Amino acid sequence: MPQPVRISLDAMGGDSGPPVVIGGAALALERHPEMRFILVGNETVIRPLLAGREKLAAASEIRHTDVTIAMDAKPSQAVRSGRRTSSMWMAIQAVRDGEADAAVSAGNTGALMAMAKICLKTMTHIERPAIAAIWPTTRGESIVLDVGASIGADAAHLVDMAIMGAAMARIVFDIPVPTVGLLNVGTEEMKGVETVREASRILHESNIPGLAYHGFVEGDDIGRGTVDVVVTEGFAGNIALKTAEGTAKQVGEYLRAAMSRTWTAKLGYLLAKGAFDALREKLDPRKVNGGVFLGLEGIVVKSHGGTDAVGFASAIDMAHDMAQHQLMRTIRDMLDDDPGSGPA
Amino acid sequence: MPQPVRISLDAMGGDSGPPVVIGGAALALERHPEMRFILVGNETVIRPLLAGREKLAAASEIRHTDVTIAMDAKPSQAVRSGRRTSSMWMAIQAVRDGEADAAVSAGNTGALMAMAKICLKTMTHIERPAIAAIWPTTRGESIVLDVGASIGADAAHLVDMAIMGAAMARIVFDIPVPTVGLLNVGTEEMKGVETVREASRILHESNIPGLAYHGFVEGDDIGRGTVDVVVTEGFAGNIALKTAEGTAKQVGEYLRAAMSRTWTAKLGYLLAKGAFDALREKLDPRKVNGGVFLGLEGIVVKSHGGTDAVGFASAIDMAHDMAQHQLMRTIRDMLDDDPGSGPA
Repeated sequence: MPQPVRISLDAMGGDSGPPVVIGGAALALERHPEMRFILVGNETVIRPLLAGREKLAAASEIRHTDVTIAMDAKPSQAVRSGRRTSSMWMAIQAVRDGEADAAVSAGNTGALMAMAKICLKTMTHIERPAIAAIWPTTRGESIVLDVGASIGADAAHLVDMAIMGAAMARIVFDIPVPTVGLLNVGTEEMKGVETVREASRILHESNIPGLAYHGFVEGDDIGRGTVDVVVTEGFAGNIALKTAEGTAKQVGEYLRAAMSRTWTAKLGYLLAKGAFDALREKLDPRKVNGGVFLGLEGIVVKSHGGTDAVGFASAIDMAHDMAQHQLMRTIRDMLDDDPGSGPA
Repeated sequence: MPQPVRISLDAMGGDSGPPVVIGGAALALERHPEMRFILVGNETVIRPLLAGREKLAAASEIRHTDVTIAMDAKPSQAVRSGRRTSSMWMAIQAVRDGEADAAVSAGNTGALMAMAKICLKTMTHIERPAIAAIWPTTRGESIVLDVGASIGADAAHLVDMAIMGAAMARIVFDIPVPTVGLLNVGTEEMKGVETVREASRILHESNIPGLAYHGFVEGDDIGRGTVDVVVTEGFAGNIALKTAEGTAKQVGEYLRAAMSRTWTAKLGYLLAKGAFDALREKLDPRKVNGGVFLGLEGIVVKSHGGTDAVGFASAIDMAHDMAQHQLMRTIRDMLDDDPGSGPA
């Protein structure tokens, strides 16, 4: 029987802090009753939230600290003031110390990444970590990275991301050899950035085992699900992600407005309510909440700061799956198989 | 009384060529009966398409050429083989020679931009042209540039784009002082590219007349209509545009699937059909077809290559409005007012 997955939670992170984190943990525990939690944060706030949640209380250990990282803290500032002492750091440290298999935080992304890099270090052969997001597509789901770990990426970094993204896709989608595309622009004049073309040449030539390189994809290929993994530099990836979120919301608003304009439309809406509910659930950003930090010597999942307990539970699920299916080992195995990756 | 607007059309451009171009011209002429056209392309193909379209025939002059630029031609190749002789070049040249007020082509974007740069030249003070798109938002419409003219932009180029985009917004939206935002990423760690921050400092400090600088915006602000003009570098802009198009299409497919799942949903769909039709029209990409080339000594509008006559007519409308409201002069006036723009 496998060991139960142990997750450390930054209980103070996010716009709403402990109520969302504890509520999310309770929901996630229902789905994975064998899970164990380390709840890091202010015990006087956390303890009362466990009242009436016997199962969660029994599965959890509270680790007290008074220090919380502000949502708008600059990463450097957060590291200075919160190193070793903050709930965010201590949640990550539990992973480093082998007490937890993964950490989840809804806190400040920049601070979380800065602390994770310092505390966990990057993997051998990996220069820079990336953040991977699950992206709903018309064919199912894809993985997109980097959606915001760093700006700029050279060809080697893009190739690293292709490997790490494929490792994650193998776990999340249970596909032995996921397809990978490099995000590029299609107009002839532009032909793409040189680093992207260089990465494409490397991926074409090196035949990395465990991934099928598809070639370039464009922005509209992401939602179409053309490939299992879309690789791009963090600035463009972050803009693509937020633009897609904004567009989905915008179409939803158009739809709501259209459905309330006439009485026949309203009646139609009532009749088709089940379908609309299904659509709403399909578009619910909480379902795919959780950016996975890839390239570190440990698993850290970032939840949206403004999410609720349902959304936070999705981020915990993601951490659970990554830990249970041994994301780190899968990435390491793929890196070892990559003929192009030299010694660190 | 103002002079009638004269438009030169690359009749051979686009996936479908003359039928779409001539059909689009006929539709646009219904809306602007005073317009005049120069139809550049193969006369033996164009002439029969004017049969039965007396008004269009009377408003048009055919300029024959056998040379057509292939949709997949490389820009350099297109310029070599089609300079002076191709339908694309001759349509642009009519603008340069003062015979037309604007040119429209559904041909290869890269080739069109390369030829426009050579034939028309960039405006004084402007280093690089940009392509601006109209973006539907929940508040109405915004302008986004650059969506694909060039990769990379230094701070001065971003500032030029802010000015040119504001000039276009003044015309399209009839707003005396449009708001302008710089597209950036929101995570603290990243804080954005240095060139974007530098452009922001310049825009904050220089108080350019005729535009209200808003600051940074993120991907989800575009569809929200937070600002009238969104400025970004061409790689990210192109990816944002295509990602949004893909997402809108994706949500539409989800909706269609949801509405056909049960008989009550189907009935609801029938009752609300008017609302769905309105929504479809709202999301119709043909309505906002037309990328405007900004920064050249002449107006060129690029239509989607795969559009139909309705979409091509929208691109002609765009060219018409830009010409009628003197886009060039508005940009020149704003550049002259900008205390920061030195001599060329």
